[in-house]
Amino acid sequence: MSGSTFGKLFRVTTFGESHGPAIGAVIDGCPAGLPLTEEMIMPYMEKRRPNAGALSTSRKEADKVKILSGVFEGVTTGTSIGLLIENTDAHSSDYSDIADKYRPGHADYTYDKKYGFRDWRGGGRSSGRETAARVAAGAVADLLLKHFGIEVKTEALVPNAIEYQEGDSVGGLVTCRVTGLPAGLGEPVFDKLDARLAAAILSIGAVKGVEFGSGFSLSEKTGSESNDGFAVRISEDGSKEIYKTSNHAGGILGGISDGSELFLIAAVKPTPSVSLPQKTVTRDGEETEIRIKGRHDKSIAPRAAAVVSAMVSLTLIDMLMENAVCRLDSLEKIYKK
Amino acid sequence: MSGSTFGKLFRVTTFGESHGPAIGAVIDGCPAGLPLTEEMIMPYMEKRRPNAGALSTSRKEADKVKILSGVFEGVTTGTSIGLLIENTDAHSSDYSDIADKYRPGHADYTYDKKYGFRDWRGGGRSSGRETAARVAAGAVADLLLKHFGIEVKTEALVPNAIEYQEGDSVGGLVTCRVTGLPAGLGEPVFDKLDARLAAAILSIGAVKGVEFGSGFSLSEKTGSESNDGFAVRISEDGSKEIYKTSNHAGGILGGISDGSELFLIAAVKPTPSVSLPQKTVTRDGEETEIRIKGRHDKSIAPRAAAVVSAMVSLTLIDMLMENAVCRLDSLEKIYKK
Amino acid sequence: MSGSTFGKLFRVTTFGESHGPAIGAVIDGCPAGLPLTEEMIMPYMEKRRPNAGALSTSRKEADKVKILSGVFEGVTTGTSIGLLIENTDAHSSDYSDIADKYRPGHADYTYDKKYGFRDWRGGGRSSGRETAARVAAGAVADLLLKHFGIEVKTEALVPNAIEYQEGDSVGGLVTCRVTGLPAGLGEPVFDKLDARLAAAILSIGAVKGVEFGSGFSLSEKTGSESNDGFAVRISEDGSKEIYKTSNHAGGILGGISDGSELFLIAAVKPTPSVSLPQKTVTRDGEETEIRIKGRHDKSIAPRAAAVVSAMVSLTLIDMLMENAVCRLDSLEKIYKK
Amino acid sequence: MSGSTFGKLFRVTTFGESHGPAIGAVIDGCPAGLPLTEEMIMPYMEKRRPNAGALSTSRKEADKVKILSGVFEGVTTGTSIGLLIENTDAHSSDYSDIADKYRPGHADYTYDKKYGFRDWRGGGRSSGRETAARVAAGAVADLLLKHFGIEVKTEALVPNAIEYQEGDSVGGLVTCRVTGLPAGLGEPVFDKLDARLAAAILSIGAVKGVEFGSGFSLSEKTGSESNDGFAVRISEDGSKEIYKTSNHAGGILGGISDGSELFLIAAVKPTPSVSLPQKTVTRDGEETEIRIKGRHDKSIAPRAAAVVSAMVSLTLIDMLMENAVCRLDSLEKIYKK
Repeated sequence: MSGSTFGKLFRVTTFGESHGPAIGAVIDGCPAGLPLTEEMIMPYMEKRRPNAGALSTSRKEADKVKILSGVFEGVTTGTSIGLLIENTDAHSSDYSDIADKYRPGHADYTYDKKYGFRDWRGGGRSSGRETAARVAAGAVADLLLKHFGIEVKTEALVPNAIEYQEGDSVGGLVTCRVTGLPAGLGEPVFDKLDARLAAAILSIGAVKGVEFGSGFSLSEKTGSESNDGFAVRISEDGSKEIYKTSNHAGGILGGISDGSELFLIAAVKPTPSVSLPQKTVTRDGEETEIRIKGRHDKSIAPRAAAVVSAMVSLTLIDMLMENAVCRLDSLEKIYKK
Repeated sequence: MSGSTFGKLFRVTTFGESHGPAIGAVIDGCPAGLPLTEEMIMPYMEKRRPNAGALSTSRKEADKVKILSGVFEGVTTGTSIGLLIENTDAHSSDYSDIADKYRPGHADYTYDKKYGFRDWRGGGRSSGRETAARVAAGAVADLLLKHFGIEVKTEALVPNAIEYQEGDSVGGLVTCRVTGLPAGLGEPVFDKLDARLAAAILSIGAVKGVEFGSGFSLSEKTGSESNDGFAVRISEDGSKEIYKTSNHAGGILGGISDGSELFLIAAVKPTPSVSLPQKTVTRDGEETEIRIKGRHDKSIAPRAAAVVSAMVSLTLIDMLMENAVCRLDSLEKIYKK
Repeated sequence: MSGSTFGKLFRVTTFGESHGPAIGAVIDGCPAGLPLTEEMIMPYMEKRRPNAGALSTSRKEADKVKILSGVFEGVTTGTSIGLLIENTDAHSSDYSDIADKYRPGHADYTYDKKYGFRDWRGGGRSSGRETAARVAAGAVADLLLKHFGIEVKTEALVPNAIEYQEGDSVGGLVTCRVTGLPAGLGEPVFDKLDARLAAAILSIGAVKGVEFGSGFSLSEKTGSESNDGFAVRISEDGSKEIYKTSNHAGGILGGISDGSELFLIAAVKPTPSVSLPQKTVTRDGEETEIRIKGRHDKSIAPRAAAVVSAMVSLTLIDMLMENAVCRLDSLEKIYKK
Repeated sequence: MSGSTFGKLFRVTTFGESHGPAIGAVIDGCPAGLPLTEEMIMPYMEKRRPNAGALSTSRKEADKVKILSGVFEGVTTGTSIGLLIENTDAHSSDYSDIADKYRPGHADYTYDKKYGFRDWRGGGRSSGRETAARVAAGAVADLLLKHFGIEVKTEALVPNAIEYQEGDSVGGLVTCRVTGLPAGLGEPVFDKLDARLAAAILSIGAVKGVEFGSGFSLSEKTGSESNDGFAVRISEDGSKEIYKTSNHAGGILGGISDGSELFLIAAVKPTPSVSLPQKTVTRDGEETEIRIKGRHDKSIAPRAAAVVSAMVSLTLIDMLMENAVCRLDSLEKIYKK
């Protein structure tokens, strides 16, 4: 199915190649009544854009998002929202010499094996360019979350001790913290909140691992060290409030948000495009060498942070909507007179 | 939707609580023509069963799987397969004292917050008991994979240096290796093979992280260290064969299997049920202490290995089927005369 | 995927063959908090059961429904509900002579062409027996609808003027009326309420057509005859209420319920099993004749009415849940403090 | 979810309002390897366009379809296909006087009830304009079907005996015949071929009923009249071929195509937009009268025929793909060496 749709209730379908005329997304299931303009989406696009720093590509896309449908007089109507981003700075000629050579660490080889051929221009559909559409859709999700007081924050950690070899690249980590999340999001068994978030985050090309709360370190701990105890405090309005005294769980118990801060870390591999010479083969099976030109990020982590943020927001709004119909008394609030 | 369905083409829907009369699974989409008997499923159930070792619970379930439908004269018919496993050794009385206390590290609190109340007997739907249905369904998936020469192997690693405190528990790791996997499985963008596997594995209650290939360590490496080069060798039948000279990617490039060994690691948290005293609260918001009785695994990792195996098999057969229709020439093999 | 799952939010997955040990259904997504016992389901099963009348089969199944999960202390918990119905009165020997002959009007031939072979005992998965699982699941849906004041009523119309030829069968119509349905159910474009209902009703084996409101007769009318005008009346609480002055639309405008009575008619073909001799062929392609023994309904319409009712209820509760999340102010009722 | 996605394996997601900047569709799951150009889509758009005849609107859209992605060097790549159609001839001012009046027979009232407000310009998302995106996507589906020798043909029947009243409209029928369809398409139980086709066809705004084969007339017939007998003939290559001696079933037995001609009829209601005065109400609940200006089809049936054709093609290619993975020996053709 080419995997271009994400979500169950708040569904995003994306399209577009690195060097085609445009990329875009269709959001199906956005609730009616959300104020939305093109201007409100742009700050999200800015976070994903390459900046002047040493870690980023020099490809400069305006990433202007056009809203084609689903919004009337500045408010979402409940119908599908078409988002379009034109590609304006694609340099296909940079890639023409690699039409027949498989770039190590890229999807060139696997696309050829899967489909029999590929759009090799700039990586085609497997390019990181595709994530601009995610960020545009993620902006709508994030605006909805903010409406309910939920804040998603990501931060990139790049190993600064690494002596940069000219033409090489580096990996990194992206941390994500979500505050204001109500307890109850996530479904038992297969659609646990962490399961859905893991899929969301591993769907980002450069991510090779994810952990929640104390994550991998828990594999070396005991139960008494790892469990988060419960206690009671008096909240601002004078009522009793149950809270956890620690957060090894990262805000998720049994796949369901527990009302504390959600915390996860994504592992980002180094940008596979390096200009150092690498051993590879041609489509015809001849061994050869490749030096990758083109414009690439030194580390993907900083821009990946914007994409992790988008994917987390898309997942959370979807599960917030799904959770809304899991109780009869919730439905009563909507339907009972 | 309570998240009890897994997969798109090979779909598994499970039901059942720890202390109810039975648990089970319905497989919808299993291809017709696979030899299948109840006996063929039992070895998979054995791997998940607690054994006599120090790490396992003393609850003893026969885990006899009944095939209720979808099989005729020992062969799958293509229609939905009903699988039933009766619960025979449930001791609800062991849990009655915790009906009102939230067990740290468990889903008691979040189920109450989500649904307003919960089936507290043995953890109800959030119990590890639920995974027996996954393993039964996973057996069918694995038999299909084996038919195509694909082998899924998992191994549990438990920290043996830990001085066991009586009444405490330990975490662990589960590694998974898949051999014989053809290149091409996995869909671009959101349904990448690693994304779908990550969801599968994080849907297991005790898992708190997953990584593919060199995983988290890649966040500290350079691109030239991390990329897997391509080379050519002569295969047994005399034809040229492209292969990778290393496997930091863990067998997945751009979300699509590359024909090399698939490798992943899951981080398993310590069994949350420990008999040491823990601070917690009651449903009514009174602080209290809890000592968990009942029968529990010292480390979940060994039994989780069988569940990881099942979830990987379920994911792979689903994506193998999905990949089968992604090319016109594949469809021609089936429909063209 | 063998098509055994129905619905998006309130999802039902069924399994079972006519002459296997049991049939059943798993409901995933039933809201927590609905009172539910096995006794509450039985009246629905009774409506589908053959009665003593001239139109019905003499096969007598108790159709006792066991609830295996998802209910705790008489109330749904929000987790998946397993329903099991044992087959107790299957006479496979009645069918053994037709293992190799294709029954006209049945699915024998098409199952063989699709899957390569079939479970021929009593029609296997294609038997009307399968609908017992739908009715059990439909009962849960209907209880939910009743909670919101929505009533689904069906009636069978069998042509009584037909001089019954011994050993032959007759067709009929099933009408369905739904009262108390709020305006707003149904989604634009592909998931219109009538589209989803049409799929639900045509999924019943014997149904060959469906129409809404004035249906087929509208093809011969003018717009001014067909449009339902709007007017205003004062409701009981003194407020203004908009209503339609006629109902050619059958309660659906633009695929969305308009608050008036929903009305549809399903066309039911005659029972294909007739004991008169019919021309047919064997699996090996030899022409032959067949006389169908076994126990069959003279007209399917009366029992189909119970199945139409179930399918309408399943569709309506699903779309009622889906509609609950289409507006920001609906979500606010659940999440805003 | 606003219902803008159709299909399971060959999935189409559409967006766009009558008077917005553009409408479009994203196809996810189109197999790689199909020759596809914008020119190949245009003949399908032509069939849907209003012509000079007395039955059609005078709105003139070029309906030029732009392919934004998923095609490389004239061949589909297997990734999502973005299709864009700009709106160039929208006259919003024609509609401004009806912003507050509910048009009888339209979705104005139900959209307001569902979402709280609506994009009233030209009917917004509920306009027939939306079907242009379906026809564009249906063209791709139809090209795939043709590749396998499957032909979908539709015909509109408009009641010609009707004395046309100036300013009024008429209903009609659309018949659809499919030849070359292999046996085996359609899934048991809920995803029967006729169930999926019924949903597809009832999702078209003006359609109020559908019947397959002898349809509603079967409700008045006997089984011996209605069943299609089987017989054997010698095919061109000298082999035996099983065929049906009649086709009351319309090419579908037990929800699965039987290899004979597929036949269905859709009932189309009269165009609801008539310029005669009609009784209606305002949003505020004041009774009033409305005369609908704007440009509208006298009968929708001729243009609906193109949409029925598109929806049938989209359904058939989806089920052809789904059927491809229902047998182990089919998968062997793709994966076994």
